[in-house]
Amino acid sequence: MNGRKVSEAVVRRLPRYYRRLELLKRKGVERISSSELAQQMNLNPSQVRQDLNCFGGFGQQGYGYHVSTLFDEIANILGLTQQYKLVIVGAGNIGQALVQYEGFRQQGFMVVALFDVNEKIVGSEIAGLPVLHVDELKQFIEENNVDIGIIAARRSAAQDIADTMADAGIRGIWNFVPTDVTADVPLENVHLSDSMLVLSYRLNEQGEK
Amino acid sequence: MNGRKVSEAVVRRLPRYYRRLELLKRKGVERISSSELAQQMNLNPSQVRQDLNCFGGFGQQGYGYHVSTLFDEIANILGLTQQYKLVIVGAGNIGQALVQYEGFRQQGFMVVALFDVNEKIVGSEIAGLPVLHVDELKQFIEENNVDIGIIAARRSAAQDIADTMADAGIRGIWNFVPTDVTADVPLENVHLSDSMLVLSYRLNEQGEK
Repeated sequence: MNGRKVSEAVVRRLPRYYRRLELLKRKGVERISSSELAQQMNLNPSQVRQDLNCFGGFGQQGYGYHVSTLFDEIANILGLTQQYKLVIVGAGNIGQALVQYEGFRQQGFMVVALFDVNEKIVGSEIAGLPVLHVDELKQFIEENNVDIGIIAARRSAAQDIADTMADAGIRGIWNFVPTDVTADVPLENVHLSDSMLVLSYRLNEQGEK
Repeated sequence: MNGRKVSEAVVRRLPRYYRRLELLKRKGVERISSSELAQQMNLNPSQVRQDLNCFGGFGQQGYGYHVSTLFDEIANILGLTQQYKLVIVGAGNIGQALVQYEGFRQQGFMVVALFDVNEKIVGSEIAGLPVLHVDELKQFIEENNVDIGIIAARRSAAQDIADTMADAGIRGIWNFVPTDVTADVPLENVHLSDSMLVLSYRLNEQGEK
């Protein structure tokens, strides 16, 4: 990457390219034209070319893209050639679901501990990982060089947890609590219900109910 | 709505407008200019005006948008003035987390039953809702006019479940299994890890690791 600022919209599309290319690779597809890739992804071809140009342009006139090269490049751009240490704060359903989420581990995201305030589960193990008390969060992040903190706690605690994580020197925060938290480190607020709202729009668009 | 086809990108931004306006409304903000709204949402003002024009244009030159009117209009466009009956297939962590997800109920999404194949939980209740066997799924959807089916089962079962739901006349499907399923009804594949990949991109963008 050449340090140029890449637009938010392009960055948001990168995971989609990554998933599509992974699928093509798995199917044994060796190369693909920008128009074919665009069609499969419901984008237009010039957008695909423009997006991929932002990262150096891996296509070749008349040949298209070499699938596994492009896949590797995008994995690299997404930082998936590294390993990340994760902690999850909140060992409820969402926290537990994320521990077991398929695919994270193979992409290099390793959960190393969970944190909670509930004395009934603090001290136990979930999926082979220790459940520690939130009071230990700061020290644990510092001592273990944790990269990413996932917030899956109750709403009222979310901002405090983000503050503790940032204070402890975490590199990024992934927030699953349906309230926007802020921090001075890269942060993604996940809005599960956004896609439900899109679905509900589509039902309406279809007409009668 | 005037039946015009609205672009995918605009539809995807609607939930963000909805959330932002809800926040403004809660804060007691009465009106907002397109440039202020754009700035808060990290969009450009002409895009905001263009987006909202797709739905009839609720702004007024020199005044901006009336927050609660615009909020109501967008809620209406998103179909949130209706009630939807939902079933969840897969009563594991994700399924249970979704049952308890704050905000769904107040937006009109009512889960009426869960389904699973695990005999240990079939027949029990989760959050006051019955857990039924997947074999009963088709009949239940038909008899109860279920609107939306959520798939939170294991990967290998996802497509079969989608087929059963579509056969039974469900109106839309929300798939949480990390594999793209297809159906002849509106369908949203949720890719939880996309936002994790964006986060990992941001960590990388910041430089050193």
